[in-house]
Order: sequence, then C-alpha cells, then structure tokens
Amino acid sequence: MANLDPGPVMLHDSLYGLEYGETSPDRMTATCPVTEKVLQPYGIVHGGIFCSMAETIASVGTHLGVQDGGNIAVGMSNNMNFLRPITTGSIHAEAKPRHRGRTTWIWDVEITNDDGALCAIGRITIAVRPRP
Amino acid sequence: MANLDPGPVMLHDSLYGLEYGETSPDRMTATCPVTEKVLQPYGIVHGGIFCSMAETIASVGTHLGVQDGGNIAVGMSNNMNFLRPITTGSIHAEAKPRHRGRTTWIWDVEITNDDGALCAIGRITIAVRPRP
Amino acid sequence: MANLDPGPVMLHDSLYGLEYGETSPDRMTATCPVTEKVLQPYGIVHGGIFCSMAETIASVGTHLGVQDGGNIAVGMSNNMNFLRPITTGSIHAEAKPRHRGRTTWIWDVEITNDDGALCAIGRITIAVRPRP
Amino acid sequence: MANLDPGPVMLHDSLYGLEYGETSPDRMTATCPVTEKVLQPYGIVHGGIFCSMAETIASVGTHLGVQDGGNIAVGMSNNMNFLRPITTGSIHAEAKPRHRGRTTWIWDVEITNDDGALCAIGRITIAVRPRP
Repeated sequence: MANLDPGPVMLHDSLYGLEYGETSPDRMTATCPVTEKVLQPYGIVHGGIFCSMAETIASVGTHLGVQDGGNIAVGMSNNMNFLRPITTGSIHAEAKPRHRGRTTWIWDVEITNDDGALCAIGRITIAVRPRP
Repeated sequence: MANLDPGPVMLHDSLYGLEYGETSPDRMTATCPVTEKVLQPYGIVHGGIFCSMAETIASVGTHLGVQDGGNIAVGMSNNMNFLRPITTGSIHAEAKPRHRGRTTWIWDVEITNDDGALCAIGRITIAVRPRP
Repeated sequence: MANLDPGPVMLHDSLYGLEYGETSPDRMTATCPVTEKVLQPYGIVHGGIFCSMAETIASVGTHLGVQDGGNIAVGMSNNMNFLRPITTGSIHAEAKPRHRGRTTWIWDVEITNDDGALCAIGRITIAVRPRP
Repeated sequence: MANLDPGPVMLHDSLYGLEYGETSPDRMTATCPVTEKVLQPYGIVHGGIFCSMAETIASVGTHLGVQDGGNIAVGMSNNMNFLRPITTGSIHAEAKPRHRGRTTWIWDVEITNDDGALCAIGRITIAVRPRP
C-alpha cells in the first residue's frame, strides 16, 4: 500500500528525534538517531523512547486506517519488554497490526538496532471511537 | 525517608518537562506541566509521556535502593493503561514498589490530573544487576 | 456492600478448586486449597491457576456491576506477574476495580499465601458490551 | 528439531484437556477440545484456559532448552489479549521464543480456532534459574 500522509511529526516526538518511514494501516516504521537526547545516564537509550516510538506509530497507523470511517484512534494500553540495550547508531521501530477490530486495534512493535538485532518488543492497544 | 539525590533530570525528560518530587526507594513522585511539548494532535497528552515518566521514576527509585549494594537498575518491562485524557494543568506521577526482589523490583505507577482523578496506571519491572 | 449472587462456581474453576468469598462490584475474593491439582512438577502452584482465579473474579465482579444496565462482561486482557511461589496451604485472591468506565473495567488482583505474603499481582481488563 | 520429552501432561492441564503437539525449545504447540470443562456461562472458552495453555507451553519449552545447562524454568509474567471467542471445536496454541537470554526467555503465543482465526495472543516471560 502506498504511504498515507501521517501529518507532521508531533512536537513531542520531534524533540527526541523520531522520523517516519512507511506510513500505512498495514505497516508503520520510524527511526530515531541515538543522540544525547535519548540516552540515560548509563549511556543506553531510555526505555521511554521505545514506548513513545511504539505509541506514536501504532496510533498513527490506526488513525490512517479508521479516519475515513469517521473514527479517531486513542491509546488504550502500551506494553513494552526491553531485551537488549541500544547505545549508538539509530533506533529502528516497526509496527504491524495483529487485530483490527471494530473497537480496538492491537499492534506488535519491534525495535531493532543497526545490526537488525531485536532490542525491544511491544504490544499496543489502540481504541477506535467515533469522532466527537 | 528523607529524599535521596536522584542526580539531575535526564536530558530526555528535561526536553518534555519532568521535575522530580519525592525521591526514595519507598516512593517516587514527579510532575510535568502540560505544554505543547506533551500534547498530540487531539490536544491530549501523548501516552508516551506517561510511559517515560513512569519508566524514569521506577528506574531512579530502584537505583536509589540498590546502588549501595553495588548494583545497577535496568528497565525490563513497562506496562501502561490509559484511562482518561489529560488536556491542561499538570501531570502528576507517583510510583510505589510492590516487590523488591534480589533480581527484580516491580513498581505500581499512578498518573493523576490536577483534580486527583486517575488518568493512567502502570506496572514497571526493573532488573537489578551487578555493576559492570 | 452485601454480597451479590455470583451463580455457581464455573465448571472450569471447580475442577481445580476455586471457592468464592466476597462477591460484589467493589471487591471480589476467592480462595483455592493447594492440592496436587494446582501444582506443577517443581511442587509450586501453576501460574495458570493464578491467571484463572484473577480472570474469574474480575469477570464476575464486572458482571455483577453491569448486568442491571443490560450489559455483559467479556475478558479483554489478563496480565499477571509472579513474585513468589506458593507450595502449601491455600491461595487467596482479591480483586479491586481501579477503573469502571462505560466500555471497560480494569481490576487489580493480589494473590497472597496463608501468611499474607504477596505472591502474584495482576491487572485485568474486562470489556463491557450490550447484551446480545 | 525432533520433539523432546516434555514429561506427562500436568494434572492441572489434564483436568481441562490439554494435549501436547510439538515439544521443543524452538516451537511448542498444544491443543484442547472445547468441552463443558473450558466454557464459562456465556458459552465461550474461559480466558484462564488460554492463559494456562500459554503458561504451560512456554514453561515446558524453556525447560527443554535450559535443563541440560543445569537450570530450571520459572514463570515470571503472563500477558494475554483476548481477541475473538472460541465456542466449539478445538483450541490450538502455538508458542515461539522471541528472546532466549541468560536469565529470561520471552515467548509469543498465538491461540487459534479450527478455522485458523487468531483468537488470543500472549507474551510470556520465563525466568531461567540455577537448579536448587
């Protein structure tokens, strides 16, 4: 599927450095360079960055899939497991929908480093609600 | 318990506005003003902010509790449920340890708005490892 | 609140030994004796028992709270953390609602042993839907 | 990989009807017929059954992978999302390891019905500890 327009990167995400890659209801990707802005004191990427990247791409992907039906996407839960630290290079996030229901979408998110090693996995539930 | 020194606010957290309140292994708190920096396009706080605040205070609280034993604290999982949007005022985060084991600490986190209404809840697992 | 009638113990739960205690939308409790039926080969209670007890009391508690409004309760997610093994005596489960929304209820569940030590904690989301 | 010997089905699991399929550290499967023993009052499979099946196959798969190193497998967390009810036929569970670390293994579990439709997904963390 061709990329849909996700709108500009949200201010919160632009502060730490997220950039969109693929943007569709079938697959979302994003990257973020590892700079001082995302590191915690041990020199590894702060877990909250992985959560934010996952939350953003799952939300935007759901939004792109439900907006034409007059619905909005609202985050419901965000569950991340951290497997391996990232210290340099870039953070690569990919999200794929596992469930696209009438009231909720569930996405699996994978975070990898520049070598393709799996560094974090997430499961994000996004509620679908009528546009107010 | 008197507050322990958590060190300066991490750069990632200072970008969106986190400020420490109580800082001890028994209870951690933090606040964040609601500014454009934490809002997503619908005008509500981005879920990733709640995740980052929770990750930070659970990690720092564990660090304060285990550093004297020659150990470090490393995030293992971060599970958040979003209950109610926050749109104005401040975000209030409080974390209390539910389990302080030899190899993992588990924290419950509550996010409230200025009226004290519960807006998000989290369960954060932090691994305790020997300092490298 | 006085106990409401939860109906008979479900066949699945009666197979391993669950018994209801308090039964209300404000607090649910259940116990289960530790017998061979709930132990795994290491002689500790099987984690699935904690999950089943939590799922049952959160579902029944939600059912008791929403049935008068013409709604039913359907399990949506079940997240358990295992902290400490139980090997003898009884399993004690207590659930309290943290969120009672229009479309979902979220319960916190605590599993304790006969000494009152915390052995597992859970967070259970139950969907509320119109009765078909 | 050829199947390894998982030992007899645990009493808890035999009560509701689990049967092993593939049994290896690389992939575990199990099935369970839908009988009265696994249904809750609405006529759908009790969520606790999905949790128990997931917990069992993830634990046994980890056990098969770590026993030769003098280690045991102990359940640490069990996170399930319920997507679609199962009412008849059989329950099919499949688990694949996403992370095989020194101290934890993380498994993704998929529960499907006889038509292959995805009905529940799980993420199970199993701790690896030295045999006492």
